[in-house]
Amino acid sequence: MDFTAEKSAEIVSASFDAARDPRAREVLQALTRHLHAFVREIRPSMAEWEQAIDFLTRTGRTCTDTRQEFILLSDVLGVSMLVETLEAEHTTIGATPATVLGPFHMVASPPRELGDSIDLVADGTPCVIEGRITDTHGNPLPGASVDVWQADDKGFYDVQQPGTLPEGNGRGLFTADEEGRYRFRTVRPAPYPIPVDGPVGELLDVAGRHPYRPAHVHFIVAAEGHHPVTTHAFAADSAYIDSDTVFAVKRDLIVDFVTVDDPAEAARHGVTAPFRHARFDIALAPANPPSTPHTK
Amino acid sequence: MDFTAEKSAEIVSASFDAARDPRAREVLQALTRHLHAFVREIRPSMAEWEQAIDFLTRTGRTCTDTRQEFILLSDVLGVSMLVETLEAEHTTIGATPATVLGPFHMVASPPRELGDSIDLVADGTPCVIEGRITDTHGNPLPGASVDVWQADDKGFYDVQQPGTLPEGNGRGLFTADEEGRYRFRTVRPAPYPIPVDGPVGELLDVAGRHPYRPAHVHFIVAAEGHHPVTTHAFAADSAYIDSDTVFAVKRDLIVDFVTVDDPAEAARHGVTAPFRHARFDIALAPANPPSTPHTK
Repeated sequence: MDFTAEKSAEIVSASFDAARDPRAREVLQALTRHLHAFVREIRPSMAEWEQAIDFLTRTGRTCTDTRQEFILLSDVLGVSMLVETLEAEHTTIGATPATVLGPFHMVASPPRELGDSIDLVADGTPCVIEGRITDTHGNPLPGASVDVWQADDKGFYDVQQPGTLPEGNGRGLFTADEEGRYRFRTVRPAPYPIPVDGPVGELLDVAGRHPYRPAHVHFIVAAEGHHPVTTHAFAADSAYIDSDTVFAVKRDLIVDFVTVDDPAEAARHGVTAPFRHARFDIALAPANPPSTPHTK
Repeated sequence: MDFTAEKSAEIVSASFDAARDPRAREVLQALTRHLHAFVREIRPSMAEWEQAIDFLTRTGRTCTDTRQEFILLSDVLGVSMLVETLEAEHTTIGATPATVLGPFHMVASPPRELGDSIDLVADGTPCVIEGRITDTHGNPLPGASVDVWQADDKGFYDVQQPGTLPEGNGRGLFTADEEGRYRFRTVRPAPYPIPVDGPVGELLDVAGRHPYRPAHVHFIVAAEGHHPVTTHAFAADSAYIDSDTVFAVKRDLIVDFVTVDDPAEAARHGVTAPFRHARFDIALAPANPPSTPHTK
């Protein structure tokens, strides 16, 4: 059978018929079908195909131990958010929605005590973040692990400025208390651009898109018997809250970072006034939800 | 508007509305639509998404000045062949069909005289390849350039064995004579596996696919006023002629490499008997075909 544009997907799909693992076969055949449909639709010139090869190659070569350009690409194309959203569809109503992991959860967060500060630099607006980890009925989940990481007040993660920022700056691994409560001190996070000096930056430029993410704090919260959640708390008053370049904002994740100008209140939290105070409660779905089976 | 699996393609597409270049916008929006449809269909787990990111990253990192793993990936997924096939749709009936460029046209072929040998090693079966370059009406195209490259009798291109094979082995850039004829001596090409020590090799292994290409010689033929063609001559008696791992075989590109055991005939060609003789005529379409407009 001669290879034609009409039969290409069929011919290439058939080459995957012998895949031992049925899931691998399903994925490869679906990839073939969608990829060939895309190519047939846009009819790339050889020059455009070469540009695509070059773009993907440079994206791979831009990846290092501390930078993942393919995750960034997945992020700005909304793929990361779509995967997270599909994965979260089996969670129960009432659970905190998931959002993207992002490329900066590459080093382990240092274990810290409740109330500790994750801000080792302390030159921005102090901020206190606290909340409760519960199940979807509001029952506390004592001992839940709360892994947080964030950019500093200039918009940088520790791993982006290894000489300047101390290791572990903006990161902490907390354990919720017997009432499921967590709390930590930090600096008010700033909006920041994703790295634009690589291929993903070129893509955003061609697309006429800005590279910014609204101010946020990342969370991964896990508790035994429950489905862990990877999510963010977004600052409601942040720039770009309506146009996150990685599409991660969800209504339920927008949190007021309230300005508090009360020295007594500040002292109670171990910070100086004025400071920002945010409350972010997180509800986890049961690991094996009884009522909403994961439909394929 | 909250990001949902149903609206993801629409939301991300809208982010490309401001692209300055209309073609860039078209490509990015089509990519978004097909990519999101693929993700929605297969519903990757986070672990599978991470595997995909890792696969793409390693594919980029496997690329060097002499190895292009993303072209290999495009090849084994039939994308290269589809792009070539679509690009060639505007050529006139009667023109030699195009096939994939492949990843080994990375160094310039050394200019050689008609009749020269491109085989600088000479330990396989001698082979003579000749033919005519014409237009689609059979009129000769004097001075056409004929760029050829091939693997040796062990299945290796020069760039794959830089210490062992001389530079330019298996490569030559010829100029057709006043009757459009070309001819050169070489070694009978062997089938060979594409490189399997990288991510593409893993993919073929998972797919239960062999990595072989049937024996062939690559050609890029160009003449003024005509559409150049990137193609192969495939040896009809080669193993894998029915299952080329990059889908490049077309009926019209299969050529008999005839065994000739006649010392006089061999001497006439400057080789020793027995040798293989192949005739591969190539017809180029006019650069601006009058009758078959390139439909979008």
